[in-house]
Order: sequence, then structure tokens, then C-alpha cells
Amino acid sequence: MPYVNIKITREGVTQDQKSALIKGVTDLLKEVLGKSPATTFVVINEVDLEDWGIGGLPVEEYRKTLDKP
Amino acid sequence: MPYVNIKITREGVTQDQKSALIKGVTDLLKEVLGKSPATTFVVINEVDLEDWGIGGLPVEEYRKTLDKP
Amino acid sequence: MPYVNIKITREGVTQDQKSALIKGVTDLLKEVLGKSPATTFVVINEVDLEDWGIGGLPVEEYRKTLDKP
Amino acid sequence: MPYVNIKITREGVTQDQKSALIKGVTDLLKEVLGKSPATTFVVINEVDLEDWGIGGLPVEEYRKTLDKP
Amino acid sequence: MPYVNIKITREGVTQDQKSALIKGVTDLLKEVLGKSPATTFVVINEVDLEDWGIGGLPVEEYRKTLDKP
Amino acid sequence: MPYVNIKITREGVTQDQKSALIKGVTDLLKEVLGKSPATTFVVINEVDLEDWGIGGLPVEEYRKTLDKP
Repeated sequence: MPYVNIKITREGVTQDQKSALIKGVTDLLKEVLGKSPATTFVVINEVDLEDWGIGGLPVEEYRKTLDKP
Repeated sequence: MPYVNIKITREGVTQDQKSALIKGVTDLLKEVLGKSPATTFVVINEVDLEDWGIGGLPVEEYRKTLDKP
Repeated sequence: MPYVNIKITREGVTQDQKSALIKGVTDLLKEVLGKSPATTFVVINEVDLEDWGIGGLPVEEYRKTLDKP
Repeated sequence: MPYVNIKITREGVTQDQKSALIKGVTDLLKEVLGKSPATTFVVINEVDLEDWGIGGLPVEEYRKTLDKP
Repeated sequence: MPYVNIKITREGVTQDQKSALIKGVTDLLKEVLGKSPATTFVVINEVDLEDWGIGGLPVEEYRKTLDKP
Repeated sequence: MPYVNIKITREGVTQDQKSALIKGVTDLLKEVLGKSPATTFVVINEVDLEDWGIGGLPVEEYRKTLDKP
């Protein structure tokens, strides 16, 4: 009875993409560990860009530093 | 000083129901483990139906499969 | 299909107490929100005292500050 | 930069199976959302059977109820 | 590659304050443990007041009990 | 009443370093948001290297790929 939590930045992820994540993770747990899909939970959290930090900066500012040549 | 996180699907849970969850969990931790309510945190997360998967499907689609005779 | 995570300090919690927490939380979610126990997950994490901070100190040191008259 | 947390019961999962979970989830996020593996974190938590509840019971007791004819 | 999750009540936290939290936590992990900022994630969750309980009550009600002389 | 969870790889972190993390995060929340230390929780989780993935690999294998000239 696995519980999987996927946190991603909120950037226009579609319902179809979410369904694909849910199906893919559930299939993976069945294949690798034999877990039953009926008791496999997948919870997706979209996190606003200003709430996700990397490199000591909010994501959008961090990305700008990577674009610099 | 317990920390309890309750994740449920977002389906019209009322403020009164949330208060009942907070009180119920806090009372339980006091009764079973003697934990002080003053340092017991309860955080409720409502998760959109499209963000919760079970059986390899988003919740709403999964429920449809259960209704089939 | 709720998911509940209970974090408590590791201080000799017994199997019976854990069972009481699992049953209590599951019953609460059924009573308040009508959630089915068959799809209610409860995960308990015991956290070592040195890994839990409050008041800017590890729990054990914090408790000593409270004992001071 | 996704963060994925996989919680499973502690029941003899091997290092190879863990590697397969890490690779599978990372590949999935690349395929579905185009996320870079270099900033995709996967954290696996194995949870002791007595710490995981379903149906209002610790997992092992719950499974016994399912075996009854 | 640390992952830090900060949960706070939703009460008008500004973008600048969020940036200060992200920078502060990332710097701390570098200073104390030598962790690289490039692989340090910080995720902030603002939680609605009605979804956060302490003392067996939602935060706002709890605060009223503290104001009583 | 913030709740902060710090996840790091298990690689010989000392009690003093943990205390420094707890103090640093609690001070930061007080300075930036005026949060009271008495209701600020910090929970540290050390994660075994085989349970943390990045780049589609467990941490130790991933690090080997970085060492290659």
C-alpha cells in the first residue's frame, strides 16, 4: 500500500499529464515491488514558483542566473 | 509535541468538520500518549480530485470503475 | 481516501498505543467525513529526540529550560 | 526540479529494487513533463509494518482479515 | 542535496520574505553541513488558518483563548 | 507556529550540527516573519544514501558520475 507524493512547480501541467504521472508511478510500483494498484495512492502538489527555492533563490530568479552566458 | 498532517480530497469539507478533525486528533494524542494539546499541531491539506490518484487513475475516474455493475 | 501522517518523538511508544492511534484516527475520519476505513492510510513516524527541535533547541534541552523554577 | 517521496512498507526491498524505483520515477518525470534528471530528487521511506495502518488496523492485522474466507 | 519544507500560516507573507527564507535556509545548510546551494531545495507551503490546528482548535480560535486576561 | 522539515543524507551529521540547524532555522523564522520560537517545530530526517535518488541514480552512484573527468 504505497503512498507517493510528487511535488512539481506550477507551470501549466495538464490533466492528461497528471493522469500519466499517476498511471506511470502506479505501474512502476506494481512492476518493481508487486504492489496492488487498488491500494497505491499518488498525490500531486503543484508549488507556485515563488514558493520553490533552489540555489538560494526562488526558481524564476535562479533560472535567470543559468541563462547568463 | 506531535505534528499531524491530514490529507483529504477537496470535496466541500466545512469549517466545522475541520474543527472536529483538529479536536478529535488532538484529544486522541492526549488520551493515548499524554501529549499536551498546546504543542500538538494538526495541518489539513485538501487535495484537488485531479491531483489524487488511486488504482492508477485520478480519483473521479477510479470511482466510475467501482460503479460498474 | 485520506492519508494521515503522525509524527511523534521516539520515547517508548508501544505497539498497543500505535494501534490505538491508527484506530482512533480512522474512526474519526469515518465519523466526521464518512471516509471508508478500507482506503484510509495512517503512517506513524517516531522521531529521535535529537532530531526534533522546539524553541530553537533539541527537545531534551528545551524541556530542561521549562523545568527551571 | 521535482521532488518525489515514495513511502512503502519495510518488507525486504532490495537495493536493486530501490534503484529501479529511482530510475523509473525520474524517467517518468522526464518523459511526461520534460523535467531534468539532474534536479529530480527521489526519496524512499520504508515504514515498519506496525507504523502503517489501513482499515483501522496495523498492516499485518489488516492482512489477516483479508485472508479469512 | 537537502530538501527543506517550511509550513507557515497564510497571513500576508510577501515575496521578499519568502526569498529571505529561501536564502537563509540555503546559507545555513551550506555553513553547517557544507551542502551545495545548487542542489538544495526549499519548498514553502502557506496553510490557511482554518486548516492549521493547535491546542485542539483552529489557529484563529486558539489565539482568542490566549488573549483572555 | 511554523513547522520545518529538513531532509538530508545520512553521512555522519553530529548532534552539534543538528542543534545548529534547529537554532538557525528557528532564528530565521523569528527574524523574517516574527514567529515565536516556542511554537516553531523543526524536524530533521536523515535519509540513507541508498534511499535518496538524483539524476535517476542513488546518490552514491550519481556522485561517481560527477567525478569522471
